[in-house]
Amino acid sequence: MTGHEVAEINPDKTRVAGTTADGNGFEFSYDRLLIASGSSAIKPDIPGIDLPGVFVLKSLADGRRIKAFLRDKPVKKAIIIGMGYIALEMCESLVNLNIAVDMVKPNPVFLPWLEPSMADIIKDSLESRGVGVHAGHAVERIEAVGDGLRVVTPDLSLQGDMVVAGIGVKPNSRMAAAAGLELSVADSIAVDRGLRTSNDRIYAAGDCADAYHVVTDAKTWIPLALRANRAGWAAADNVIGKAATLDGVAGTSVFRVFDFEVARTGLNLAEARTAGFDAVENVIQSASRAHSYSSAGSPPIWVNLIGDKTSGRLLGAQMIGTEGVAHRINAPAVALHNRMTVAQYSQTDLAYAPPFGPTWDPTLTAANQLLKKL
Amino acid sequence: MTGHEVAEINPDKTRVAGTTADGNGFEFSYDRLLIASGSSAIKPDIPGIDLPGVFVLKSLADGRRIKAFLRDKPVKKAIIIGMGYIALEMCESLVNLNIAVDMVKPNPVFLPWLEPSMADIIKDSLESRGVGVHAGHAVERIEAVGDGLRVVTPDLSLQGDMVVAGIGVKPNSRMAAAAGLELSVADSIAVDRGLRTSNDRIYAAGDCADAYHVVTDAKTWIPLALRANRAGWAAADNVIGKAATLDGVAGTSVFRVFDFEVARTGLNLAEARTAGFDAVENVIQSASRAHSYSSAGSPPIWVNLIGDKTSGRLLGAQMIGTEGVAHRINAPAVALHNRMTVAQYSQTDLAYAPPFGPTWDPTLTAANQLLKKL
Repeated sequence: MTGHEVAEINPDKTRVAGTTADGNGFEFSYDRLLIASGSSAIKPDIPGIDLPGVFVLKSLADGRRIKAFLRDKPVKKAIIIGMGYIALEMCESLVNLNIAVDMVKPNPVFLPWLEPSMADIIKDSLESRGVGVHAGHAVERIEAVGDGLRVVTPDLSLQGDMVVAGIGVKPNSRMAAAAGLELSVADSIAVDRGLRTSNDRIYAAGDCADAYHVVTDAKTWIPLALRANRAGWAAADNVIGKAATLDGVAGTSVFRVFDFEVARTGLNLAEARTAGFDAVENVIQSASRAHSYSSAGSPPIWVNLIGDKTSGRLLGAQMIGTEGVAHRINAPAVALHNRMTVAQYSQTDLAYAPPFGPTWDPTLTAANQLLKKL
Repeated sequence: MTGHEVAEINPDKTRVAGTTADGNGFEFSYDRLLIASGSSAIKPDIPGIDLPGVFVLKSLADGRRIKAFLRDKPVKKAIIIGMGYIALEMCESLVNLNIAVDMVKPNPVFLPWLEPSMADIIKDSLESRGVGVHAGHAVERIEAVGDGLRVVTPDLSLQGDMVVAGIGVKPNSRMAAAAGLELSVADSIAVDRGLRTSNDRIYAAGDCADAYHVVTDAKTWIPLALRANRAGWAAADNVIGKAATLDGVAGTSVFRVFDFEVARTGLNLAEARTAGFDAVENVIQSASRAHSYSSAGSPPIWVNLIGDKTSGRLLGAQMIGTEGVAHRINAPAVALHNRMTVAQYSQTDLAYAPPFGPTWDPTLTAANQLLKKL
């Protein structure tokens, strides 16, 4: 039933209540309830965020609004607040439209989850495209200035024709919290492996719900499409009485920004140490193809692996390069699901042919090198 | 010591003997001996195989001889005996030089290890390039005809300017056999997980030696570069007293032929049944990128997974497509090392971003579909 805005979940009465599109109240009872309320873009709480020409990017509708603005106004310069993957993809799209871009965020570290030398390579690649990367500046307000906009931080002002904020998302869990359901990491709705909330008649799936992490077995909140989709299917199975449980997430993800593919799975060094592992990491540079294959040379690929000195376990992997990164991250991801040690991973039989990689896949070379530190 | 041709291994005396380049005899004693004699191209035992313009392809020297011939003679048409990956790569190289190619082999099934509908797609792709694919014709002889050559089978004669035979390789194990060492699959030298032969002072590594298969735990002989390289390191470790053992091979491989990438890991259906599994397979077609990403559409990718009905185990994977195949095969390969079930693999958290694949990686969709048959 579209056009029904749910305002309240009442677990005691197994009812949901709200208002229809034409303003009437409604109340439905349920045997089982699935909350699939997703996540919302975090809207920076600063003066000027509602000015015309300022956008928050999350939904298809947001994208259409931005497109319409670009069609109607002569945008020469854009300022992006945030430097996560959505912000970076936005940056690429705007630069491809010949719009100059400045990016700004409070954290002084660019891509803080990525090993620093690898993050620097991505940052350099942005700057070589003329993108201004201003990390370490907290935005205080946005001001209208003539036909344009000004983004103001304590020590830096950036002027442009439009502003896009992409500073992350938060789970839509307010109603679940009001109904007394247990919340979890980042205020996501706590669910068990069967997607059941703390109320056994209520399920939650998608970006609004948490998950177990396959490396730590602890709760985590990593809102990504595959898990959301998979959780929807599993919750549906459970609602109809067909028991389904989910393993958990490894946090495997990839994005492209200009020429680079950037991928990760599992824990980074800081996360691994926080989780109690005696973690070390090691970065290697390898070739994405065999040396012999192309006279044009072989584009480099960088792999960082994180391992635990105590158990020898592989804890995570990060990869950047101009080609061959996106699918390569999946082999270490499967290794994490199986709690493989770095030594075991180093022995896996991966494919080799000159057009596609060196004899030792870069992730194997990375494992061999990390072993020396374990 | 180069220029020393070993003729005999004498394990009783821990000595090897042979002849130097200048014709003198030599004899060396050893504490530990490593046999790394590799493999040789199988030379078809047919009349005419030594005619000028007939080549066998294995070594760099073979490749150089072929190149020199192509430089010196006006080759308009070549006949390739064999249709394995070396033969197919040769075919692509020749077609790219505007040389017409006919391929011929006795087995009537093209790429017999690959699921038939997928093999047909590759065959069609060759034929669409004008390559003659003549499977099911045993070559009886090669004849010189004027300036050219004729390849004769009982029911087909093919005429061309050169002939290349690429019908596979055999392990160089004659001397090992003569020394009384135990041989294994396809006459490869039997080694344990530490690369030790049946004589505990003698190691063998590389294409001459066998390996354990990670799916069956049985001996197998799959001569590929990564295993050969890895075995060399492990044997060296063992020779110097640093215990090293190898897990085994999954038989992961990939090759490119024209626009297609063709990859496999683990067992195919016939191999799985021969190994005693109650095996079934299922082919799916998916997209190599997200539907939304490119207006040019998303190239298709085909995945065949093989599973065991009794245990639910994943036994093997095969994949073809014009992009995104080569590295995707490694995730199922890691799954095989861990003896994952198809259900467990279907739950792995693989990377998704629109430029690189659909939300469900094609191997996950394949696992979900195969589950319905298990």
